[in-house]
Amino acid sequence: MTSDLLIRNVRPMGGHNTDILIEGGRIARIEPGLPALGRPTEDGGGRIAIPGLVEAHTHLDKSLIGMAWYRNEVGPRLTDKISNEREAKARLGIEPARQSRRQALASVAQGTTCIRSHVDIDTVHGLAGIEGVMRTREELRDIVEIEIVAFPQSGLMIRPGTIELMQRALELGAEVVGGLDPAGIDRDPKGHLDTIFNLAQRYGRPIDIHLHEAGELGAFSLELVIERTRALGMRGKVTVSHAFCLGMQDTEYVERLIDEISELSINIVTTGPASRPSPPVAKLRAAGVIVGAGNDGIRDTWAPYGNGDMLERAMFVGLRNNFRRDEELEVALDVCTRGGARVMALEGYGLEPGCWGDTVLLEGETLAEAVVSHRPRSLVVKRGKVVARRGVAEPVLESTPR
Amino acid sequence: MTSDLLIRNVRPMGGHNTDILIEGGRIARIEPGLPALGRPTEDGGGRIAIPGLVEAHTHLDKSLIGMAWYRNEVGPRLTDKISNEREAKARLGIEPARQSRRQALASVAQGTTCIRSHVDIDTVHGLAGIEGVMRTREELRDIVEIEIVAFPQSGLMIRPGTIELMQRALELGAEVVGGLDPAGIDRDPKGHLDTIFNLAQRYGRPIDIHLHEAGELGAFSLELVIERTRALGMRGKVTVSHAFCLGMQDTEYVERLIDEISELSINIVTTGPASRPSPPVAKLRAAGVIVGAGNDGIRDTWAPYGNGDMLERAMFVGLRNNFRRDEELEVALDVCTRGGARVMALEGYGLEPGCWGDTVLLEGETLAEAVVSHRPRSLVVKRGKVVARRGVAEPVLESTPR
Repeated sequence: MTSDLLIRNVRPMGGHNTDILIEGGRIARIEPGLPALGRPTEDGGGRIAIPGLVEAHTHLDKSLIGMAWYRNEVGPRLTDKISNEREAKARLGIEPARQSRRQALASVAQGTTCIRSHVDIDTVHGLAGIEGVMRTREELRDIVEIEIVAFPQSGLMIRPGTIELMQRALELGAEVVGGLDPAGIDRDPKGHLDTIFNLAQRYGRPIDIHLHEAGELGAFSLELVIERTRALGMRGKVTVSHAFCLGMQDTEYVERLIDEISELSINIVTTGPASRPSPPVAKLRAAGVIVGAGNDGIRDTWAPYGNGDMLERAMFVGLRNNFRRDEELEVALDVCTRGGARVMALEGYGLEPGCWGDTVLLEGETLAEAVVSHRPRSLVVKRGKVVARRGVAEPVLESTPR
Repeated sequence: MTSDLLIRNVRPMGGHNTDILIEGGRIARIEPGLPALGRPTEDGGGRIAIPGLVEAHTHLDKSLIGMAWYRNEVGPRLTDKISNEREAKARLGIEPARQSRRQALASVAQGTTCIRSHVDIDTVHGLAGIEGVMRTREELRDIVEIEIVAFPQSGLMIRPGTIELMQRALELGAEVVGGLDPAGIDRDPKGHLDTIFNLAQRYGRPIDIHLHEAGELGAFSLELVIERTRALGMRGKVTVSHAFCLGMQDTEYVERLIDEISELSINIVTTGPASRPSPPVAKLRAAGVIVGAGNDGIRDTWAPYGNGDMLERAMFVGLRNNFRRDEELEVALDVCTRGGARVMALEGYGLEPGCWGDTVLLEGETLAEAVVSHRPRSLVVKRGKVVARRGVAEPVLESTPR
């Protein structure tokens, strides 16, 4: 479903006042003083217009949003959190369709128009997560695009039967092959990476791998990713999420890795994590690497933080990278809009004629102010249709069946 | 000015429902079912009650809050930011009384009841900052306590005349002797530290020194602080703000420093900085060190971030320290309340009978939820007087002369 809409009196990317005309869901013209001619019209009140925020890394299937407060008493290791979550899903009744719908609507209310969600696959819960998020995707298809990464959260090689589940997920409708810490979790970096690259090749899909491994270990796993990307001709088809190893101290080594990542157009997705080494966003972009950002898990059994706001996430990316100048804050926002769109290879993304009419109005005098204040979005438009106002999703969406 | 107030139906620290009676500005009783007896009464609606948030490190004199957006184009070095600011104060008209009043009111609206503000002193602006913040302190004395640190932002030894200004500030009404990067800025760690410890001794005042110096350099400066604290018998009278050096890799060295800091009751104040090494809050507290937190500069020429919310700051402290468990989030909140109160040596701080009736009502099922959500405070009470509701300072305050 696509719509017509005239948005008057807005400042695209904080520039001069103008109007944006959306026809058939796509931006037709951006000019001041366009006539309404009976079309639905919104007055932007001189606010900043940006293209839709892009959530390039989250986990829609397992947020606890809207559920009773979960008291987190989980242990410190990654495997503690994984086991705890696998068990908690049944105990707490974390229903993937309901929870993904809640989180997706919270994201829409905050101006996100496209979401890449990793969705758990394991031998306990099978494809329940994939099926639930696919239901949400179908229900909300007119207000937000959701892309699904088949994600072997509990490990691939160490849990026999998982590879077959990954195949079924890709056949069912997951678009992207996920992976996870090939050394840290699967204890078999070659086996894990050969498997996910093999899946990607067989199904003709891109890859998005979680790489929490830090320092030299993460760099080794990243080298293996680089080698396979080159050997299999998967230039531009591979994303590495988190990539903490690129925040390691040995900057000379990091620069060599960045050169190869750039050459192979491997994308990096970050959350701007305060407590972990972090990929250097400015250096990566200077080397031509596409960088997107995501909120990661929102209020789940891993951690209680988060609300789904990608404009606040731009602030976190700025804080983590010590961005202070206005032009740096604009980079952080670009990471959370165009950067994520390029990671997801979205067609027709942008704020130019011909692009989809996914437009968000921000409060603030400048883009930098909008990022640091991240006040509720005054208007969110998806393909010409108003989907949220003043930080709240339109009621018609809230009342559709759950 | 102190008041009587009955706050009904609240959950102190997220516990069981009860009532809080404040008489003559102090908490008289905490019991369920207390009679109003004609006293002013507020219904807490079952919300969480905590003692006032404590802003233990900020710069009230130089926020740009409420002014036109400042486009930040400052260079990367600390000295770039210092020089840029000294010049911008006159050019932009950053009037200390007006700006400190704006920031203090924003803090009050968000539940802060006590503030320690470092205030710039230099040979260009003299004591204008001190005088301005003192005016705000006097005007707002019934709604927020403000403590002033005489802060030689532009250097002490390298700008002759600054020591004399520091003396005059302490005579005028600044309570605390400030200092700054004795090696990094003054290039004379012995000279700088001897001077500020001498001022502290002469005037019988505590010290709060900014220490941004990282790694081994910061640790050396910290050793010099430790030596002087011990030699001069200033146990419990010295605070080190930022203390990035305690986030250095050499954990064995850090542990030795922490042992000495603990032995001498030197306090640490942190912002939970995402882009810098950071004092390890859990380790410091386990060693018995008092840790407070502050927002540092709010939207100033240094950086555009911040809004004065110490509950959001608790989230930043949590994120920086990788706090995920509920009990860890409670620690982050404790740092932003009782920790800061102990740094400031506040008399009668707390949520027990006999303490001042500085009470804040938070939205959330648990303390951890209140921290991660940091929704607008429903009620802020200073010594029994309601000073803010639903995130907004009471109108009577907004209309007092500026």
